[in-house]
Amino acid sequence: MPPLNPRLLSGGLDRGPRRKSAAEYIEGVLAGNRVILSQAITLTESTRPEDQKLASEVIHSCLPHAGKSLRIGITGIPGVGKSTFIESFGQLLLEKGHRLSVLAIDPSSERSKGSILGDKTRMESLTREENAYIRPSPSGGSPGGVARKTRESIILCEAAGFDRILVETVGVGQGETIVHSMVDFFLLLMLPGAGDELQGMKRGIMEMADGIAITKSDFGNEKRAKIAAADYRRALELFPPADHKWKAQVLLTSAMTSMGLEDVYSLLENFYEFMQGNGHFEKRRKGQAVYWMNEYLGELVRQKILENPESRKYRNELREQVTEGSLSPFEAADMLLRHALEGPED
Amino acid sequence: MPPLNPRLLSGGLDRGPRRKSAAEYIEGVLAGNRVILSQAITLTESTRPEDQKLASEVIHSCLPHAGKSLRIGITGIPGVGKSTFIESFGQLLLEKGHRLSVLAIDPSSERSKGSILGDKTRMESLTREENAYIRPSPSGGSPGGVARKTRESIILCEAAGFDRILVETVGVGQGETIVHSMVDFFLLLMLPGAGDELQGMKRGIMEMADGIAITKSDFGNEKRAKIAAADYRRALELFPPADHKWKAQVLLTSAMTSMGLEDVYSLLENFYEFMQGNGHFEKRRKGQAVYWMNEYLGELVRQKILENPESRKYRNELREQVTEGSLSPFEAADMLLRHALEGPED
Repeated sequence: MPPLNPRLLSGGLDRGPRRKSAAEYIEGVLAGNRVILSQAITLTESTRPEDQKLASEVIHSCLPHAGKSLRIGITGIPGVGKSTFIESFGQLLLEKGHRLSVLAIDPSSERSKGSILGDKTRMESLTREENAYIRPSPSGGSPGGVARKTRESIILCEAAGFDRILVETVGVGQGETIVHSMVDFFLLLMLPGAGDELQGMKRGIMEMADGIAITKSDFGNEKRAKIAAADYRRALELFPPADHKWKAQVLLTSAMTSMGLEDVYSLLENFYEFMQGNGHFEKRRKGQAVYWMNEYLGELVRQKILENPESRKYRNELREQVTEGSLSPFEAADMLLRHALEGPED
Repeated sequence: MPPLNPRLLSGGLDRGPRRKSAAEYIEGVLAGNRVILSQAITLTESTRPEDQKLASEVIHSCLPHAGKSLRIGITGIPGVGKSTFIESFGQLLLEKGHRLSVLAIDPSSERSKGSILGDKTRMESLTREENAYIRPSPSGGSPGGVARKTRESIILCEAAGFDRILVETVGVGQGETIVHSMVDFFLLLMLPGAGDELQGMKRGIMEMADGIAITKSDFGNEKRAKIAAADYRRALELFPPADHKWKAQVLLTSAMTSMGLEDVYSLLENFYEFMQGNGHFEKRRKGQAVYWMNEYLGELVRQKILENPESRKYRNELREQVTEGSLSPFEAADMLLRHALEGPED
């Protein structure tokens, strides 16, 4: 008689594949097994309390093996050629002997799941590579929840031996700040022809950039690309220098002709060396970790409030009064926290 | 026999002047009485629970009478001439028939109380004006706490009939984001001679600006000021336009000769009209109110944790582990919240 299907044994509540033990996940991830890595990431994305407990255990054990990578955030408006850039640049990273993970973050993904998956399948050649691991954006949940899932995916990928992590923003004007707060290097992709394409990009993005790559600087675009580069360089010079003294560079690239991709590679490696040399690499990561601890504390409280239908209703009423101006936001926060901790006054 | 000193009656715990009733504060503020306005602001700054309860009541009753002002944030590095600008521009606002409050925000003020008070006394002519009210930065506490106090001061000043509120940042690279999230118009002061003076300013500030005023554009600085203005204009053009479509302007000013101050005044009035016309004035304020409600919820939880010595010790331990990389920030936040809500596990 064949062994019983474990999915039948686990009862109606468990509709997914059989869960592994924490040790199995950990061992698989540390061995670089991509199937188990995928399953572990799926586990961190689960909303079931048992899964979350198991995921916590896996993450915790992977943490000491994580961190040995360069985390690169990539952003740019739709049409800038993000997927094509990542596909070409990813190939270069593989040629240089790196192991590459591509993660995506999209705080608005509830609304556009389909298009994101569609987008992912466009990175055809990378998905076939042994040393590349492509993962679409975790879907649903609050921005804080999506941030948590993405940060945990980074940990798991690093523990699985991936040493270059690309985190791309999907959608417009949503994920940039979140990505910036979890990567080492923030790369902004821009079209040749400065200005026009900035429509729809969130303000403040440019000053976050550690580097700007102008895409599609080929086939008749050369002149416009050079003018755009000069404009961005002038603008960047006006920005206050950051503590770490790294100066953002502007590079011309073409995914079609591979022009400039080696320059982007060198830029990233120089940055890595520069920031490790002056101690700011570690400093930035530590700052990010404390930022997320504080940030997530507030997020957890908001979650706790939203989980309870009565608290949620109360929150919505208070928010209404706050936007109307009949209640101060601080008073509302006080009332909300008291309600959540002690239940309604009566 | 003279009446007993009320300070003696109130016992040893109350070391301040006698507290008024909520009705007395409210009536005094709404009548525009500056002495009572000052006392009400002091009340909001108090850390005593009875005072906080009373302050909440006062704020709540003043809210319906607040909001009818233009809130202007002013920032710039030390040496840019902030006090001098505010003094001259403030005089102009008074001449135009406005009633002016100048508030200051300094999240680092624990360390530099003295110098701030010193700075305030420099606005000599304004402090003597009937229709001006100058208030130094609330001292101490977390950035969230300072934000709350400043926002509540704005409410009280508006309820007292002040229709132009200047909120200036004191110190460097600290209060800008906080101020930006509570004002209608964000004015950045810059020295003539672009670039050099940006040292020490926080990145991202320039993209927040609704207007830039170049100070000291006089006495031989004219040429450098014009070049700086052209540079900033070019840089601003590269920034993505905001939803509200307002385009930040760059103006040349001199507090000494009053040059350009009328232009700044017109800029602010145009902005007011433009943003009210397209509905973004209200939209921004509502967004700010909800932002602060959410933000302060997290702040309250952090406060609650820091108030309890045992929780604080635990928080510090967790933070240590988070920066070392042995604990994920999300796990730490989970543990911290559970500890705060339920006490230590044992």
